[in-house]
Amino acid sequence: MTPHFPDGLDADRVLRTLLAAAEAAAELTLSRFRTPLAVENKFAIGFDPVTEADLMAETAIRKVIEEAFPDHGITGEEWDPKAADSAFEWIIDPIDGTRAYISGVPVWGTLIGLTHRGRAVAGLMAQPFTGESWIGMPGETHYVHRDTNAVARTSGVDKLAKAKLSTTTPELFSNGLADVWTAVRNAALQCRYGLDCYAYCLLASGHIDLVVEAGLKNVDIAPLIPIIENAGGIVTNWQGGPAETGGNCIAAATPALHAETLALIRRHGG
Amino acid sequence: MTPHFPDGLDADRVLRTLLAAAEAAAELTLSRFRTPLAVENKFAIGFDPVTEADLMAETAIRKVIEEAFPDHGITGEEWDPKAADSAFEWIIDPIDGTRAYISGVPVWGTLIGLTHRGRAVAGLMAQPFTGESWIGMPGETHYVHRDTNAVARTSGVDKLAKAKLSTTTPELFSNGLADVWTAVRNAALQCRYGLDCYAYCLLASGHIDLVVEAGLKNVDIAPLIPIIENAGGIVTNWQGGPAETGGNCIAAATPALHAETLALIRRHGG
Repeated sequence: MTPHFPDGLDADRVLRTLLAAAEAAAELTLSRFRTPLAVENKFAIGFDPVTEADLMAETAIRKVIEEAFPDHGITGEEWDPKAADSAFEWIIDPIDGTRAYISGVPVWGTLIGLTHRGRAVAGLMAQPFTGESWIGMPGETHYVHRDTNAVARTSGVDKLAKAKLSTTTPELFSNGLADVWTAVRNAALQCRYGLDCYAYCLLASGHIDLVVEAGLKNVDIAPLIPIIENAGGIVTNWQGGPAETGGNCIAAATPALHAETLALIRRHGG
Repeated sequence: MTPHFPDGLDADRVLRTLLAAAEAAAELTLSRFRTPLAVENKFAIGFDPVTEADLMAETAIRKVIEEAFPDHGITGEEWDPKAADSAFEWIIDPIDGTRAYISGVPVWGTLIGLTHRGRAVAGLMAQPFTGESWIGMPGETHYVHRDTNAVARTSGVDKLAKAKLSTTTPELFSNGLADVWTAVRNAALQCRYGLDCYAYCLLASGHIDLVVEAGLKNVDIAPLIPIIENAGGIVTNWQGGPAETGGNCIAAATPALHAETLALIRRHGG
């Protein structure tokens, strides 16, 4: 493939930056995975763990990006955004799935995306414990597992009744959207919970067919969009518009499955 | 450690048999993981996938056990039980978490347990994709990850309000037990879904503190009991009795957490 980026941005340099940033983060996240952690609470109410690994990994990722593309903007989960007079902005979630991380479950991931005028054009998800990463570039998504590298493609599943569905937890829908979730869940073939970003990557590789989630932040989804789209899938918000800003999102293996599910969501008030 | 088995059974031979059986199964399960599978339906209604890998893996495990201990009984998930005039019976679930398996999620596991007069005395869980296994023998549980081998211990968490909870899906409780689940879920610190046997092993290693599930089969839980107990945890059914026969089960990191959760379950009709 010869990836083509807007404004003549160098594709090889984007790829090298994604890989170098992920590698820098992996040392920090993996060495602290499954060890006792000082878990801070972001908010007085509830439980929103932010680990030392999370903060340090974002710092390391930002450093790699700032060295490669000093004029680009950067938005991350943990630190203040870096504003810039550029059409390009990097979107970082150093540990997507912090609850999985502190529970020892290897489905969390480091997410790094690149947007151009708000549209995601490249993205990476890395899971250092399993040694897997998914990289979405214009025209192709690659799945890397230790020494192997393969093109990832979504499944051809085009009916909800045949779809393997996933969402991180049904509690995402507790804010008035329970009917939507129940309708989608009951119409699908089966459902897996608890996967965070890993679900979208399994969708890109054709193992899961549909992901429906609510209340996402931009950093949760924007880096995953190029992974899904360049593997043949479709991801939008529940209005059918761009998902880069987060909110209620749907990712599907095929346009037909996306359309059927979106129609069902709307009939149930979503 | 010097594991001691009833009736003078050779501990080294038990361990070698567990490892050899898991290795024989791993070749068959891993080579079919994340490939297109001919999924059969066990029942006309609903979706209960049994893969070729599942059937072949159990055959391979039985062969190893029958060669090592020809006079022992064997019960497996897939084939008819082998009756025997022995106090020892092996319990096999070749792929626990078949839905995770066919969705590409590496939290399924091969479960092999040994019971003596109905009480689980040794057990193994192996996850070939991540290269992990947990082995419970009298006195000690070991966690093996590729070339590393460590003793596994449960956490010291002794209060439900501080406990990281897991269950495979809230749908386990749809048969009249929703109130029980809601009460436990709301009292715990956080909850992870979707882990099958992997949850019990993360509990043995101190990353998760509590697992509450309903409607388990004996093969789902019996091989995990020695892994949990010999790591310092406690596992029973909701009546506080032995969990070897399955049903509604609870596994906890500490006796205090177990007692508090069991009392809450009972107050909500469990």
